[in-house]
Amino acid sequence: MVLEKINGPEDVKKLSVEEMKTLAAEMNDRVVQKTAVHGGHIGPNLGVSEMTIALHYVFNSPIDKLVWDVSHQTYPHKMLTGRKIGFEPGHYDEVMPYTNPGESVHDFFNVGHTSTSIANAVGLAKARDMAGETGNIIAIIGDGSLSGGLALEALNNAAQLKTNLIIIANDNQMSIDKNYGGLYENLRELRESEGQAANNLFKAFNLDYKYLADGNDIERLISLFQSVKDIDHPIVLHINTEKGHGWQPAIDEKRRFHWGGNFDPKTGKDLSPKGGRSWGDLVPEYLGKKIDAGEKVLAINAAIPGILGLVEFYEKYPDNYWDAGIAEQFTMTFGGAASTVKGVRPIIFHNSTFVQRAYDQLMHDISMNNEPAIVVVAGVSINSADSSHQGSFGTGWLSTVPNFVYLAPTNETEFTNMMDWAIAQHEKPVMINLPQHGLTSTTTSSLKDFAKPKYDIVENGADVAILGLGGFFDQAHKVSDELAKSGVHATLVNPLFIRELDTATLDKLAETHKVLATFEDNTLDGGFGQRVASYLARKGVKVLNFGALTEFVDEIPTAELYQKYHLTPELASADILDALK
Amino acid sequence: MVLEKINGPEDVKKLSVEEMKTLAAEMNDRVVQKTAVHGGHIGPNLGVSEMTIALHYVFNSPIDKLVWDVSHQTYPHKMLTGRKIGFEPGHYDEVMPYTNPGESVHDFFNVGHTSTSIANAVGLAKARDMAGETGNIIAIIGDGSLSGGLALEALNNAAQLKTNLIIIANDNQMSIDKNYGGLYENLRELRESEGQAANNLFKAFNLDYKYLADGNDIERLISLFQSVKDIDHPIVLHINTEKGHGWQPAIDEKRRFHWGGNFDPKTGKDLSPKGGRSWGDLVPEYLGKKIDAGEKVLAINAAIPGILGLVEFYEKYPDNYWDAGIAEQFTMTFGGAASTVKGVRPIIFHNSTFVQRAYDQLMHDISMNNEPAIVVVAGVSINSADSSHQGSFGTGWLSTVPNFVYLAPTNETEFTNMMDWAIAQHEKPVMINLPQHGLTSTTTSSLKDFAKPKYDIVENGADVAILGLGGFFDQAHKVSDELAKSGVHATLVNPLFIRELDTATLDKLAETHKVLATFEDNTLDGGFGQRVASYLARKGVKVLNFGALTEFVDEIPTAELYQKYHLTPELASADILDALK
Repeated sequence: MVLEKINGPEDVKKLSVEEMKTLAAEMNDRVVQKTAVHGGHIGPNLGVSEMTIALHYVFNSPIDKLVWDVSHQTYPHKMLTGRKIGFEPGHYDEVMPYTNPGESVHDFFNVGHTSTSIANAVGLAKARDMAGETGNIIAIIGDGSLSGGLALEALNNAAQLKTNLIIIANDNQMSIDKNYGGLYENLRELRESEGQAANNLFKAFNLDYKYLADGNDIERLISLFQSVKDIDHPIVLHINTEKGHGWQPAIDEKRRFHWGGNFDPKTGKDLSPKGGRSWGDLVPEYLGKKIDAGEKVLAINAAIPGILGLVEFYEKYPDNYWDAGIAEQFTMTFGGAASTVKGVRPIIFHNSTFVQRAYDQLMHDISMNNEPAIVVVAGVSINSADSSHQGSFGTGWLSTVPNFVYLAPTNETEFTNMMDWAIAQHEKPVMINLPQHGLTSTTTSSLKDFAKPKYDIVENGADVAILGLGGFFDQAHKVSDELAKSGVHATLVNPLFIRELDTATLDKLAETHKVLATFEDNTLDGGFGQRVASYLARKGVKVLNFGALTEFVDEIPTAELYQKYHLTPELASADILDALK
Repeated sequence: MVLEKINGPEDVKKLSVEEMKTLAAEMNDRVVQKTAVHGGHIGPNLGVSEMTIALHYVFNSPIDKLVWDVSHQTYPHKMLTGRKIGFEPGHYDEVMPYTNPGESVHDFFNVGHTSTSIANAVGLAKARDMAGETGNIIAIIGDGSLSGGLALEALNNAAQLKTNLIIIANDNQMSIDKNYGGLYENLRELRESEGQAANNLFKAFNLDYKYLADGNDIERLISLFQSVKDIDHPIVLHINTEKGHGWQPAIDEKRRFHWGGNFDPKTGKDLSPKGGRSWGDLVPEYLGKKIDAGEKVLAINAAIPGILGLVEFYEKYPDNYWDAGIAEQFTMTFGGAASTVKGVRPIIFHNSTFVQRAYDQLMHDISMNNEPAIVVVAGVSINSADSSHQGSFGTGWLSTVPNFVYLAPTNETEFTNMMDWAIAQHEKPVMINLPQHGLTSTTTSSLKDFAKPKYDIVENGADVAILGLGGFFDQAHKVSDELAKSGVHATLVNPLFIRELDTATLDKLAETHKVLATFEDNTLDGGFGQRVASYLARKGVKVLNFGALTEFVDEIPTAELYQKYHLTPELASADILDALK
């Protein structure tokens, strides 16, 4: 085992080329063994073992700084920088899946999103110059990340720097899924001409450029890196690597083995337990039915079609699908504009954390123009996600956008009722949060017209009214059951509407109850409950808002968060009983 | 007068080339006459008169659709599409400064921000194809707008379209200020080679390309447009125009005459009344002092250095300034990264509306990484701005970002105290709202440490406590004076902190007052008051939140908005007296 000898980058520098090749194979095996049982990114890590070894062989981390884009390809980097324990059975949870400055001096940023590395690297480089420090700054960006506006803005800005900066464009010919957009044709042209094509995206941004055809060849990588070490200006190293390199199943099925788990580490055979029906089944089914019925539905997505069954969808309805690549901003402006053409019904699918990239486009392009586009947001939930994929912020900031009818279904039937209405109307933009606790819920509203806010009173009680929003309705129900044990029979409300208040219902509830309690599966600031509190506090009505604090939480178990925020039936009902005193 | 004969695009088609030249000169004169007394965009409009005439001569608007970027260059377009009245003395307010679908069928989007046109045009083109319609879709984008991530994402996506799309890159060799970034070197190379240079940014995005050297020559413009009319795939027309064309003062002083007013329409001589001291004087003065005292300040901005005196600043301290061009996302990630290098103190200056582009970067790059960057936000205010420049949303959504110490000074002294503290500490990101009612205020807090929230009790009263945030403190003071007339002597509080609650002070105020009232110069959703209401509503305390509704308002006079939102001393005090009953 070569890896046994490696306790930090200094040990990599002592290896022969043959040992480095062995080391790459050993690291690849660890990646496969770990992800097979624990889950994680597979292909992206397998592709860069050789590059990572060569980087640590040539450069002196942390004086030379490696800035990884997304950072889901840093398992090899972690193994070489004192964290190989996290890749040994029984210790898999001891190392985070992304770079983390809290974990090592060789990491500089906590990152889980794409397209940030060049901007981060230019910032470090400018600050290095101002502080009178030295050292190489090296950004490593994958090809899929290049289509993100932030990456392109940063390429343009990198040329303003007149000092050392090395940008590695790790070209594995795909991102998470296949790559979308014109720039990938230029990358192909450059690969086919061994970097010699006159037309060159990177040179068009006025950057120096070198190409390496075999990006999994350690010797060539070393000599390339040696040739640019301590360079006095920005340069792009365009390196052609193989995603999944070193493990045949990941080479053969690049999309499947981008991220995964539950597979046989020898053959790659899927060992996942068969799950029940999910949003990933419902969404393509629903869209297909609409199209078959003559609706001109345009499903729009930014490079993650896997999340909601859109892979199956675009294979069946290619003309009704637009994947923008990693370009969340574009999806909104594009979809909004398309919705202004009569009959065309764009539906833009996003994950809560990624849609943050498109706040301005939601505001100015869709909302200000009152374009009747439909936005479906998955992943708003209080759970054990890592901080860079924490979806719980969604509802709060999304509620600050005017004009949208912003809806929270509790289950499949409500979702389809809302979608039917949203597609049929052409007056307003509509946004819908997908509940993250499954397709079913204990109750279903019969509302079919969502033009005006109308809460659904599910149970009439006394003393306390509990409003459980969307995915949290069932949790509110459990709180109500818990209160019943103390003889309090709560009124139970399914608000359906996130942003607009049903003030008539709120007024009535306030008149007939001593306390109102709101429950939402997201951070409180900007959200549903605070608007209810603001509306009722002017009358001196007692309102309790249950939800999460505005803070980043990093892989903290959901149960622990529920304890902290008093979201369990026991803690929440105790607070409500207190307020009733 | 040729313009007299023009009542719509159909009349343009009847003109001879000589008449069109005369028409361009007439329109340019109108632009200068109007902006001299009314204010508006000058140079951008002067540069495109000929192009606009040629577009309407060749294409058939509105079946062929012109999509203008930013749309501050549409005065000629408006004059040719039935709205010339708005350029006659006495009628200047009858036509909006930006495109507006409510105003004309020849306008498709309400836009006031850059970099949106290509994404909008691709959306219209895709929808045209789905709806079975025909017609040319033409995006007109200025060179400065190309650096924005949304424009670059859209260039990449445009190549996915296999049908008609015409993108006009209007290259006037500058945006608002000079252009920053590597892509402008490629544009220069293309201009110098008459479009023949092998390396070509647009072709690198796999787009077809044509170049026109004299973009102010009507005949050449017409023949270029005729050559691409009804083209069956996307193409970029790179057209070299002269900003300020037709009026020498705007050619000579391109930055000054980008936007302006109060000048002699013959000579361009400045006729502005001399103003008092402003944030534009204070900011460069303050930064200069810090640098002279040895601080490694890095002022960062996205193409609008004019807003806060940063032009003077970068001329004096070029190494301490980074202009990213129009690239708001980059400024945050870049500045945050730079702040992690010891001693370097990045200060990122933004306008409230433009900073919306960088929400994700505030969240994930600065906040999640707890990078000690400083963000200064100008323009958060309830006022008569047009909807696309409506700054009042700022505080609400910015308050949903964790970790930031988010501060609201009421005047110059508080601002410098906050900046001094923010620069001296290296633990946390800090954001500061610049009050938009001037540098002075009736009272000044002596607080100099902002690590923990601590409200300033300015006056001790009874019954009602009034909390006036930042720029609205003086308004709250006026409300307090008004209440005094009714014998109510309010407690007056300067909260200083926007996001974090000083719960100790709130608890004490709630114990000793019947009503709390919050005042903020922004929309309420997500803002200061709703958090106060949420905190106190659980105790059943009466809280009134004063601020704006979450809605777009378009050039509505400030006084009218104050009436609507009950922000005048009379209306607000009446509401408070009601609540005290």
